[in-house]
Amino acid sequence: MPAILNSSLFNFHHHPLFSTAVLSLRRHHLNVSLFSASRTTLRAYSTSSSSVPIESSANQNVRTGRSGSATSPPVEHDTAQKIDVNPPKGTRDFPPEDMRLRNWLFHHFREVSQQFGFEEVDFPVLESEALYIRKAGEEIRDQLYCFEDRGNRRVALRPELTPSLARLVIQKGKSVSLPLKWFAIGQCWRYERMTRGRRREHYQWNMDIIGVPDVMGEAELISSIITFFKRIGLTASDVGFKVSSRKVLQEVLKCYSVPENMFGRVCIIIDKIGKIPMDDIRKDLLSADMSEVAIEDLLQVLSLKSLAKLEEKLGASGEALSDLKQLFSLAEKYGYSEWLHFDASIVRGLAYYTGIVFEGFDREGKLRAICGGGRYDRLLSTFGGDDLPACGFGFGDAVIVELLKERGLLPELNLQVENIVCSLDQELQGAACAVATILREKGQSVDLVLENKPLKWVFKRAARINARRLILVGKAEWQKGMVNVKTLSTGEQLEIKLDELE
Amino acid sequence: MPAILNSSLFNFHHHPLFSTAVLSLRRHHLNVSLFSASRTTLRAYSTSSSSVPIESSANQNVRTGRSGSATSPPVEHDTAQKIDVNPPKGTRDFPPEDMRLRNWLFHHFREVSQQFGFEEVDFPVLESEALYIRKAGEEIRDQLYCFEDRGNRRVALRPELTPSLARLVIQKGKSVSLPLKWFAIGQCWRYERMTRGRRREHYQWNMDIIGVPDVMGEAELISSIITFFKRIGLTASDVGFKVSSRKVLQEVLKCYSVPENMFGRVCIIIDKIGKIPMDDIRKDLLSADMSEVAIEDLLQVLSLKSLAKLEEKLGASGEALSDLKQLFSLAEKYGYSEWLHFDASIVRGLAYYTGIVFEGFDREGKLRAICGGGRYDRLLSTFGGDDLPACGFGFGDAVIVELLKERGLLPELNLQVENIVCSLDQELQGAACAVATILREKGQSVDLVLENKPLKWVFKRAARINARRLILVGKAEWQKGMVNVKTLSTGEQLEIKLDELE
Repeated sequence: MPAILNSSLFNFHHHPLFSTAVLSLRRHHLNVSLFSASRTTLRAYSTSSSSVPIESSANQNVRTGRSGSATSPPVEHDTAQKIDVNPPKGTRDFPPEDMRLRNWLFHHFREVSQQFGFEEVDFPVLESEALYIRKAGEEIRDQLYCFEDRGNRRVALRPELTPSLARLVIQKGKSVSLPLKWFAIGQCWRYERMTRGRRREHYQWNMDIIGVPDVMGEAELISSIITFFKRIGLTASDVGFKVSSRKVLQEVLKCYSVPENMFGRVCIIIDKIGKIPMDDIRKDLLSADMSEVAIEDLLQVLSLKSLAKLEEKLGASGEALSDLKQLFSLAEKYGYSEWLHFDASIVRGLAYYTGIVFEGFDREGKLRAICGGGRYDRLLSTFGGDDLPACGFGFGDAVIVELLKERGLLPELNLQVENIVCSLDQELQGAACAVATILREKGQSVDLVLENKPLKWVFKRAARINARRLILVGKAEWQKGMVNVKTLSTGEQLEIKLDELE
Repeated sequence: MPAILNSSLFNFHHHPLFSTAVLSLRRHHLNVSLFSASRTTLRAYSTSSSSVPIESSANQNVRTGRSGSATSPPVEHDTAQKIDVNPPKGTRDFPPEDMRLRNWLFHHFREVSQQFGFEEVDFPVLESEALYIRKAGEEIRDQLYCFEDRGNRRVALRPELTPSLARLVIQKGKSVSLPLKWFAIGQCWRYERMTRGRRREHYQWNMDIIGVPDVMGEAELISSIITFFKRIGLTASDVGFKVSSRKVLQEVLKCYSVPENMFGRVCIIIDKIGKIPMDDIRKDLLSADMSEVAIEDLLQVLSLKSLAKLEEKLGASGEALSDLKQLFSLAEKYGYSEWLHFDASIVRGLAYYTGIVFEGFDREGKLRAICGGGRYDRLLSTFGGDDLPACGFGFGDAVIVELLKERGLLPELNLQVENIVCSLDQELQGAACAVATILREKGQSVDLVLENKPLKWVFKRAARINARRLILVGKAEWQKGMVNVKTLSTGEQLEIKLDELE
């Protein structure tokens, strides 16, 4: 019986209207590193350097070592060196198994975004460098993947999507009606030393709301991320959100008359707490016009983990507290209170946030932040536009996959083609093409065997692609206008008329 | 009656399992230029140059012109100049309306590929420049968007996908079972003078078959493109394929003892016929070691438009003829003969093709080639790998959209969110969040009104997003655990219990 011959790690289902995978989630560990192309296979082809000097000479590089034949017309063999078969350092190929996972992830990003009424947008991966020039000492700025193009323009591979979004919002101006609810899934780049297995590119899911000044915006964004978490099998005991507001810092800085233009810089310094020594943090804060007293007070505020304590410290009247209180109250209504925690130390590493900031974290504390976002009401004016209230988040494709792997929640995804069609005779190859076409016109997916192969090979391939049916085109049946249809799960075999094939 | 208030140009449907748009095709003209972001709006924000010099000074750029307030904490205003609100020259933003069209197109690319049993793959958009260094004088090579990165590596934004695919195939080596049937949809870049409205980036759909030496491969690829054309409403009277084989040229060159290593270069020169003056073509061919007699004979062969004439010229024994005959015979079996035409002048502009070549063209002759492809059995060895028989095609996103516009076949795509949920009272905003969550958990899409807005505004928004239902959360109903549900197409209005809401 032609049951599935080789068991497959992933199980992939096609939906007629959907391009990626429908999941089956199982709580178990898979000992495979998805999203990380193997760098071992055929390493022998690699050269130690990945770059080949350009030969600018116009002379022909006539080589005689390779003989062409009528069977294989020669192409010019210009590349003297063997190329590196790996993608450039820090980047990934997506072979089919990794692509299925990426599509699965993006599918859920899209589905959640659309359930929340967001529209998809995108921007060029290559942007003007000017879009990312900020002076706050952000990590993202230091890691800008920038170039000079052939027209002597300073360009950069986008490190994030928000500046492009801001640019487009300014460009659209009054032609769009607010609020805008936009999402994007785009590749972002950073040029950093390749430590800790961090890559130089990742895909990022962004959702942004433009035109809503109220904390309702942030509450809705967090709700969408939680909806995503739930869909992929994560619960409030797996992940949570740390929430604060930059207005907390602002109120402290105001007490100590720290110049307002230092605000972004101070936030970036504080975001480095835990990543660099506290002495360096204090030194950096001193150089940002903060007194020692102010610094100690600030650090004390940052240690607060309850709104009650924050109220003791800042009083009940400030916006920081009322925003945060409203967010926690909305969280109750949405039903996600247990996911949310006030943590004054959260500031996020981007200069442009102005209000609520949040980050998703794994409760086992092993991984970097899963996602992060907040309110950025003043970004547009830094680009010369009129400010609009705005909030949004970024959610990368790297940490979440790590987390799913840790929790044994990676989906089983496998190729699945409904039918495999094969002729039993060289002369019937054209007939097999006709059969494949009939099935495809009826919406079925068909892997057509394009060569003459033994039946054993065909069954093996059928198993590999998880085919449901094997359709054999043989002489005797074909003369009757029929084909042999074998249901692979049961072994049941029928002769079916071409016009009854479905 | 709350019917749709403002008529919408496009009509967008959500499918619960599908992220992009389901089309409704209509044969009429839309006088809008999709896929071309408006460059007029807010042009006032643009500077004449798109690049802003980097300020390298470490000093703080303390500016006092902007006052921060507790309401809007200040961010550092580092960008002195107003930025260009347009994407970099030759690139595109994808605002929602353009993104819907892109998703629609990609959806059909994916669906067709999967119907043919192909698996999706992807590669880095930034590749090592070495991958594209070929000496044949290809247009694609001259337009390489290349840089030196911060690690002094020569890198390039990929101009095409095939070299990356070849790299990955070599890397995977014997770990994959042949044939591979892979497809990809990726952005490709070329740096060219911005003439004739050509852009510097485009998305390209590729399908490739690795491991099949027989013309069945090419026939299957052409069948998949035709399946795509049919899906989007194009017929054999709109488009066709010009088909030839590079073996035709090879046989002619062999007669005249033209060195084999000139083959790729001669193909590239011939591909320029019609684009540059014939005198230049002749001059280039002379410099490629061809005699004047050979050139005239070659040009005569290239003018042939029937296989019978080709057989007269080359005899019946060659591979060129037998491959082409087989392809036309298979086309009959597939049922797409009327789409296919032999045209000896087709060679395609890439150096690596070795056998059958084909291109899709519009029958009105107004547009550049819609797509192109062929057999490339010798590409892997140019990268230091073992050759494998291979064929594939590239299909860009630009010309096809032009063609659909010409033919009035652009789909009507519009945002559609199933429900709009709104509280009638500031105090009930949390209740509205709860209602939105209930509906979303039941798989419905919900646009939640995040501010207090007058009902008139809400109806307008409902129309803009093509909502099916308006759900109002009012005090009286809420106290009874109910909400007001209005079906917008009929105006029908019902009070429904929360737990009966679906």
